[in-house]
Amino acid sequence: MQATGIIVEYNPFHNGHLYHLHETRKLTGADVVVAVMSGNFLQRGEPALLPKEERTKMALAAGVDLVIELPYAFATQQADVFANGAISLLHALFVQDICFGSESGSIEEFHTLLEKKATHQHTLQQIIKAKMKEGISYPTALSFALEQLSTNGVDVSLPNNILGMHYIEAIRQQQSSIVPRTIQRHGSNYHDETFQHNIASATSVRKTLLTNDLSLSSIEQVIPTATANLLDSYISSHGIIHHWEHYFSSLKYALLTRTKEELASIYEAEEGLENRLLAHITEASSFTSFMEAIKTKRYTWTRLQRLCLHILTNTTKKQMAQAHQEKLVPYIRILGMNQQGQRYLSLMKKKIELPLLANTKAFSHPLLELDKKASAVYTSIHPEPIRSAMLKRELTLHPIRYNEIEKAFSH
Amino acid sequence: MQATGIIVEYNPFHNGHLYHLHETRKLTGADVVVAVMSGNFLQRGEPALLPKEERTKMALAAGVDLVIELPYAFATQQADVFANGAISLLHALFVQDICFGSESGSIEEFHTLLEKKATHQHTLQQIIKAKMKEGISYPTALSFALEQLSTNGVDVSLPNNILGMHYIEAIRQQQSSIVPRTIQRHGSNYHDETFQHNIASATSVRKTLLTNDLSLSSIEQVIPTATANLLDSYISSHGIIHHWEHYFSSLKYALLTRTKEELASIYEAEEGLENRLLAHITEASSFTSFMEAIKTKRYTWTRLQRLCLHILTNTTKKQMAQAHQEKLVPYIRILGMNQQGQRYLSLMKKKIELPLLANTKAFSHPLLELDKKASAVYTSIHPEPIRSAMLKRELTLHPIRYNEIEKAFSH
Repeated sequence: MQATGIIVEYNPFHNGHLYHLHETRKLTGADVVVAVMSGNFLQRGEPALLPKEERTKMALAAGVDLVIELPYAFATQQADVFANGAISLLHALFVQDICFGSESGSIEEFHTLLEKKATHQHTLQQIIKAKMKEGISYPTALSFALEQLSTNGVDVSLPNNILGMHYIEAIRQQQSSIVPRTIQRHGSNYHDETFQHNIASATSVRKTLLTNDLSLSSIEQVIPTATANLLDSYISSHGIIHHWEHYFSSLKYALLTRTKEELASIYEAEEGLENRLLAHITEASSFTSFMEAIKTKRYTWTRLQRLCLHILTNTTKKQMAQAHQEKLVPYIRILGMNQQGQRYLSLMKKKIELPLLANTKAFSHPLLELDKKASAVYTSIHPEPIRSAMLKRELTLHPIRYNEIEKAFSH
Repeated sequence: MQATGIIVEYNPFHNGHLYHLHETRKLTGADVVVAVMSGNFLQRGEPALLPKEERTKMALAAGVDLVIELPYAFATQQADVFANGAISLLHALFVQDICFGSESGSIEEFHTLLEKKATHQHTLQQIIKAKMKEGISYPTALSFALEQLSTNGVDVSLPNNILGMHYIEAIRQQQSSIVPRTIQRHGSNYHDETFQHNIASATSVRKTLLTNDLSLSSIEQVIPTATANLLDSYISSHGIIHHWEHYFSSLKYALLTRTKEELASIYEAEEGLENRLLAHITEASSFTSFMEAIKTKRYTWTRLQRLCLHILTNTTKKQMAQAHQEKLVPYIRILGMNQQGQRYLSLMKKKIELPLLANTKAFSHPLLELDKKASAVYTSIHPEPIRSAMLKRELTLHPIRYNEIEKAFSH
């Protein structure tokens, strides 16, 4: 069986993702598509709008065969760590290739960029160093440096292209035989916030939903029916989609009950950043106003948002180091599958060396402990007894089976 | 000027307190009554129903001349530490006597009890040890042991009497010349929850208010008009009186985001108690049900409630030790005064050795840091921007002057 891997957040699953999925099958002829998906918190250091369970259902409804969780300790990191974790899971699952979206759709451009990067490693480091001395953040400095190399090639100012580059780098570093492929993104630019045709970016889908009082009619033209049904059901029963503002009260509580020393032990609290946060938190009355107050040229919104997330989940440098002790993800947490995904797992069971986790109860690892904490935090904004029930469900959740939920997806 | 000290929580100020205040003046002929009052969190490890600012106004309205804050690190402790902190403040303020309520109103009985206690120290310790081996908590074991000594004397099963005993012990330990006096409590037993005449216990006042949807008419016969006005104003603008259930969401969040090691470092987390809490928190959907689940013969409600409070405020053993480095309270935080109180302070200014704090901004001490944290936690249950405004106000609050607020108290 030919398996292809994709790396996703599905926040939420929309028509652009559907297009990517179909084009991936077309390009690779895959019998099985395996998606590695972030859990409840995402790469930019923010909560997913719906729990991983709901986003898994969206993926299965659209035809993804197997959904695997990218743990918190990889999912909420800058591109290199994120890519490393995702690729390690796909490698462990013996996918033959991966397929990611890029602006040009040309994998050659990526290979060329990486060759140049290897050749000019020293110059690159010098440019990055100089830029950071000017007070520019690392990701921006890296983009700037790569831009000097990538004239007429990959547009390295685009986050998706940067991720793609890191996927290929991770494959090489892990000496994996996975073949990287790319397809051209369609319809909308990443930063484009207005809908064009029936494809929009996830950012614009969320924004439109939030500015339209969670009315699904505002986004129904750019999401599949299953996504609409799942969003509708969650919003009806919980009244919200998850958003940083919902967690601001707890973030403020967390900041104001910890000493500077405790805050300095948090992952990503570097260069006295904790003092900057403490100086502004007492008077901040919203997450947005807090972020506006603390952000600088050096510390981007995303960088600070990740720090806030690690404060919220109380993830220390020590805990993160323990979680990364094997460098790669040492287990496979299955979030969902259809019959094809299940067949693939049965077939590969003997070859797969990592433990396959059906739920988080029976297994223990510092990496998984962080995911349990993330679940506790993610569900904490709901009133009781919903909060307790959701947390318990999440901790004991067995993989979603497509046939069990088929009904929910009927259109 | 003759000054008398009283030690209070005023949760809320009621007719029994008014009676105590009048009887105190009658007994001692005091020119000035100085009240040492717990801040936002109380001896039983629970939030005061209104902030210290409002309770200070209640005290001033009733005729207390000077209100001093008993810091968190003393106010939320068992009777001996609580008494030690309160007496040290009154000693530093040169009061000549203190006057506390007791069931019998006989100070002789207390002296007799303490003499017996000193004589039978060894036997007492043996009884306590034996009882604790049976799984009985320390306070209960102490009461039991004292009961053996105190036949026909102080009823040591009553918390107020135990406190009184500790006040006298603290005076002796601190070699203070303060004269202890006592007046008989009137009208209602401490545990009595039904109203008799126009005096009721604070416990029954709170309970009645809560079970009657915060309707003030349910308690107006047992509280002064000023208390009613202040309660009315707070409830009108905030919709609540503070209660542990409001903090349960944050307690659960705090418990679920900390490791066992972090929890074990919290003050009062002894003998693996943190494991007991962790075993029950995920499924607990209210503070009451959580407490019911964790309490045992050995660990009383109060003992566990205090532990929960220190978890909520993230108060570690180390921080508590630093706060107690001088054993006594090393500063005087003035919460409020009338003209008479102000005159007394002016008169004594040169004699008083401890710094007099008008607000918490200018001074720094580990003890005060805990109070700032307590303020941040106490105000955290309000929505923004009220939360930020309340916290800022509390941290910068200058002493309440009686004349400024006279209007609020007019009946």
